[in-house]
Amino acid sequence: MEQQYDVIIIGGGPAGLAAGLYTSRDRLKTLLIEKGFFGGLIATAEWVENYPGFPDGVGGFELGEFMRKQTAKYGLNTLIAEVTGADLKNKEKVIKTSEGDFKAKAVIIATGSDRSKLGVPGEAELTGKGVSYCATCDAAFFRDLPVAVVGGGNAAISEAIHLTNFASKVIVIHRRDQLRATRVVQEKAMTNPKIEFKWDTVVEEITGEKAVKNVKLRNAKTGEKSILELSGIFISTGLKPNTAFLQGNLPLDNSGRIITNDRMETGIPGVYAAGDVRCNSGMQAICSAGEGATAAIYAQRYLSE
Amino acid sequence: MEQQYDVIIIGGGPAGLAAGLYTSRDRLKTLLIEKGFFGGLIATAEWVENYPGFPDGVGGFELGEFMRKQTAKYGLNTLIAEVTGADLKNKEKVIKTSEGDFKAKAVIIATGSDRSKLGVPGEAELTGKGVSYCATCDAAFFRDLPVAVVGGGNAAISEAIHLTNFASKVIVIHRRDQLRATRVVQEKAMTNPKIEFKWDTVVEEITGEKAVKNVKLRNAKTGEKSILELSGIFISTGLKPNTAFLQGNLPLDNSGRIITNDRMETGIPGVYAAGDVRCNSGMQAICSAGEGATAAIYAQRYLSE
Repeated sequence: MEQQYDVIIIGGGPAGLAAGLYTSRDRLKTLLIEKGFFGGLIATAEWVENYPGFPDGVGGFELGEFMRKQTAKYGLNTLIAEVTGADLKNKEKVIKTSEGDFKAKAVIIATGSDRSKLGVPGEAELTGKGVSYCATCDAAFFRDLPVAVVGGGNAAISEAIHLTNFASKVIVIHRRDQLRATRVVQEKAMTNPKIEFKWDTVVEEITGEKAVKNVKLRNAKTGEKSILELSGIFISTGLKPNTAFLQGNLPLDNSGRIITNDRMETGIPGVYAAGDVRCNSGMQAICSAGEGATAAIYAQRYLSE
Repeated sequence: MEQQYDVIIIGGGPAGLAAGLYTSRDRLKTLLIEKGFFGGLIATAEWVENYPGFPDGVGGFELGEFMRKQTAKYGLNTLIAEVTGADLKNKEKVIKTSEGDFKAKAVIIATGSDRSKLGVPGEAELTGKGVSYCATCDAAFFRDLPVAVVGGGNAAISEAIHLTNFASKVIVIHRRDQLRATRVVQEKAMTNPKIEFKWDTVVEEITGEKAVKNVKLRNAKTGEKSILELSGIFISTGLKPNTAFLQGNLPLDNSGRIITNDRMETGIPGVYAAGDVRCNSGMQAICSAGEGATAAIYAQRYLSE
């Protein structure tokens, strides 16, 4: 494996893959480092209706695969590895990974986000035993069983709708009294007879021995406690940006996201950020892909200066 | 036709259509105003290889149609009209068009760019008689005839390659001694036996009576003049942002593009810009689509505040 590149892209979701498509087509020697699987969070979505260009929708996994295949066509080098640190300040940037160190003149950070944890007792112990962070991955395990989804955004409500294809009943547990999800998505959920809502409600504990059995709830307004008997609980309460590896190397906003300007430039010359990891990004596949391409275009200009 | 909307989007290219997809899915009452045909400049591209999600490429016209169909599915209102002016400063914005005035609480400007003119004698007179600004539209008229392309960017070189399917010979006239086009595109052109290059060369005049006959050239370095006998000349020298209708209502950069931050916000609350009309946009369909979605997301937040 070669260690010297023009551009290193960290992250293989829509932002990283779009960036890799552009740098590869421009014959810049590029390494894309991905920790798990290509496609990013969108690849865990059952069905995507809002990526422009697919009037009938497209599977999330399929969309990720399309993007990956397209970059492969232009010879993008990829590596599966965990990025553990980064030295970005000098002209030659060093990216430290579980597979060794790699160097580049420009770096595009597209590490995206992971699902937030609830942080309640039982959650960690029962993950994979009824606690899940991906309905697309795990819905089929809950055929004719009652499940809950925690959250009120697009991802949560879309997952609740998807789960009705399998589960006997889907209870949406949301800490507010209204949803954040797009109206079209809300309407679908509200008119689905299998979906029920628990408003103003937070999860206090998840219990069960070998598998999830009960979820303890508290009404955030009245304080009233209750217990739901469930076989599965899908947690979709938000996203946590993957910026821990930066260890203070770049300025972040309050939520831990990287601050850039409208050219995706961070404060450090030759270092760019794109997609969900970026402050003010739209948290949508199309926004990430556009930002990845923009970062690549400005990285290319930086390298040719 | 109703005159009051939540959001008015001006322009029906990738930026405007992506914005319309997002606002319509969010059930915001939206009017998209387009002056000519949907799809924007990308719809005039023969083949698009760099829009993420299409590993085998996609026709430019087809891509535009896909985007338009997708918005239609969610009930976006559209209007074919020329925008002649805009009152943006107040909370209620007024957009003046050839079909009357329309009002909205938020406006997304996605008017894109048009091809620049050379501004040489004969150009205006012979437009449509051998002078063209769209190879995809007009290439088939030049079967077995010699043509030229003026320009050195991606659009120009892609058009030269496309023209070799029809023309007997394609001469690329470029004012510099190297191309700006992406390497992959350059390589294809350089190895195509039908393409010749005239470096450091500018067009001084286009002549012919009923149709283009000769093009008068000047070498920008030596001053040497020459004449080429041609049947067609395709002009692809750059893009001019469509901001004339703003008449000083928004701050523009030196090239006439609208200045925004990374949320696509202009200086005026409730007014956004996305795509080629925006300063620092990547001038690519994917960048425009991403920016359109971002503008819609922040417009939605502005309207719900």
